[in-house]
Amino acid sequence: MHVDIAAAEAAIAAARRRAEELGTKMCIAVVDSGADLKAFHRMDDAWVGSIDIAIKKAKTAVFFGMPTGEIGKLSQPGGPLFGIEHSNQGLITFPGGLPIVDENGVLVGAIGVSGSSVENDHAVAVAGVAPVGVSDLPAHPWRT
Amino acid sequence: MHVDIAAAEAAIAAARRRAEELGTKMCIAVVDSGADLKAFHRMDDAWVGSIDIAIKKAKTAVFFGMPTGEIGKLSQPGGPLFGIEHSNQGLITFPGGLPIVDENGVLVGAIGVSGSSVENDHAVAVAGVAPVGVSDLPAHPWRT
Amino acid sequence: MHVDIAAAEAAIAAARRRAEELGTKMCIAVVDSGADLKAFHRMDDAWVGSIDIAIKKAKTAVFFGMPTGEIGKLSQPGGPLFGIEHSNQGLITFPGGLPIVDENGVLVGAIGVSGSSVENDHAVAVAGVAPVGVSDLPAHPWRT
Amino acid sequence: MHVDIAAAEAAIAAARRRAEELGTKMCIAVVDSGADLKAFHRMDDAWVGSIDIAIKKAKTAVFFGMPTGEIGKLSQPGGPLFGIEHSNQGLITFPGGLPIVDENGVLVGAIGVSGSSVENDHAVAVAGVAPVGVSDLPAHPWRT
Repeated sequence: MHVDIAAAEAAIAAARRRAEELGTKMCIAVVDSGADLKAFHRMDDAWVGSIDIAIKKAKTAVFFGMPTGEIGKLSQPGGPLFGIEHSNQGLITFPGGLPIVDENGVLVGAIGVSGSSVENDHAVAVAGVAPVGVSDLPAHPWRT
Repeated sequence: MHVDIAAAEAAIAAARRRAEELGTKMCIAVVDSGADLKAFHRMDDAWVGSIDIAIKKAKTAVFFGMPTGEIGKLSQPGGPLFGIEHSNQGLITFPGGLPIVDENGVLVGAIGVSGSSVENDHAVAVAGVAPVGVSDLPAHPWRT
Repeated sequence: MHVDIAAAEAAIAAARRRAEELGTKMCIAVVDSGADLKAFHRMDDAWVGSIDIAIKKAKTAVFFGMPTGEIGKLSQPGGPLFGIEHSNQGLITFPGGLPIVDENGVLVGAIGVSGSSVENDHAVAVAGVAPVGVSDLPAHPWRT
Repeated sequence: MHVDIAAAEAAIAAARRRAEELGTKMCIAVVDSGADLKAFHRMDDAWVGSIDIAIKKAKTAVFFGMPTGEIGKLSQPGGPLFGIEHSNQGLITFPGGLPIVDENGVLVGAIGVSGSSVENDHAVAVAGVAPVGVSDLPAHPWRT
């Protein structure tokens, strides 16, 4: 079950509107449930370094079916997942990546946002998910 | 001089319309003049393998300021650029990538299309460039 | 808006003079606003391992439009950007990389220096920027 | 035995003069005998894709102590080195890379040039080597 392009575009449009309200310049990526890129949008004057971070946040969120910031809590020094960022050709584990879950509780993709503070990145990701689903998955094993 | 997001979206929209007319499912990428991703769009049911090819075609076209197919003519066995695809983390040198040149003759970015025959990929790339510029650069050295 | 080769060479020459004053052996890299390498200079007897670090510092500074050391303050364990170094094929987030901003407040490139203590690396980077611009960007969103 | 920075700069300056005579825009790289980057110069309006090619040509020439075009003759389909470009993180095996050999017959580095036809790239590489050495090595095993 993959997010379709109509949903991906709706998510990006909603995220962009929120980014503009916040006065930020964002890179916004949507991936499907296979962690493959579906759509991407770089606002003018967004950081060039945020291209890869936005995409990696989206991939990270779908790789593990949880917000990127949740993984970051576990990957600190001494934590159970310390160093997990070395896997999968590089993860980003601070906030700004959120799963997209459909009305049946199925993980259909994720959104990743980068370009400002992590608080703003997260807020824009939340806005992007809103029109197309939720970010809370049922207890694992959830379905894809 | 970089393609802006409005132009990138206009290029993708035009490319998508042409892809639909042709009954094809395409991945469409736009990069700026620094070969950094600006926008990306994967139509539903497009090949997953075309994600990377579309992006590499766009990068290749801006890397050398020419259509990807022109490079491919020179990179055949026995040709002067045989093996050039090993550079820049992988080039794609068959048709489907085209430079975007503005009204002043400046290279501002490129489009890359993948998902069907190279003829269709090229036709969709041509359609994508049409509303935002041309693909013919002045004689090198052109400006960026 | 890209740093031109005359500016890149002026920056490297100034950086090199400062490095010699400090009795250090440095690798010095200049990238344009697309994070693509413009010029590079390795002083005799500089560390071989500093080649990649100097280039990555320059790229990191232009990726996010700020001194590399500023990012490092945010990427410590427990910090909001912990692990950001895994993005963009590897960042370097300790001092020695500085943006180059022109008289109009536009980010046109960056310099990266590696080969001694981070204090010396930073001092040499400062000297490199001086003849060609400043490192302070206007409040984001700045322009590229 | 490594090319020093004075020689690297002399090689780049000579190469650049020849490039200007030919009306071309080149990327010019010099590596030492360890294949590590010593100096790099991208002329304004040179192809962005030539950055990596120039560096890879220089590395390739020093990796095997011969002009890149000689390796390309052996790496064609059916040839004894077919596919060698997959090694060493990517080789470039068409003309434009030349060894730099000192007066004692020792390989001290190499120059790589990219930005125009392979004939022009080679001519500019020849001009770059001229003030600092020759490109002909004694019969292998030569010394480094």
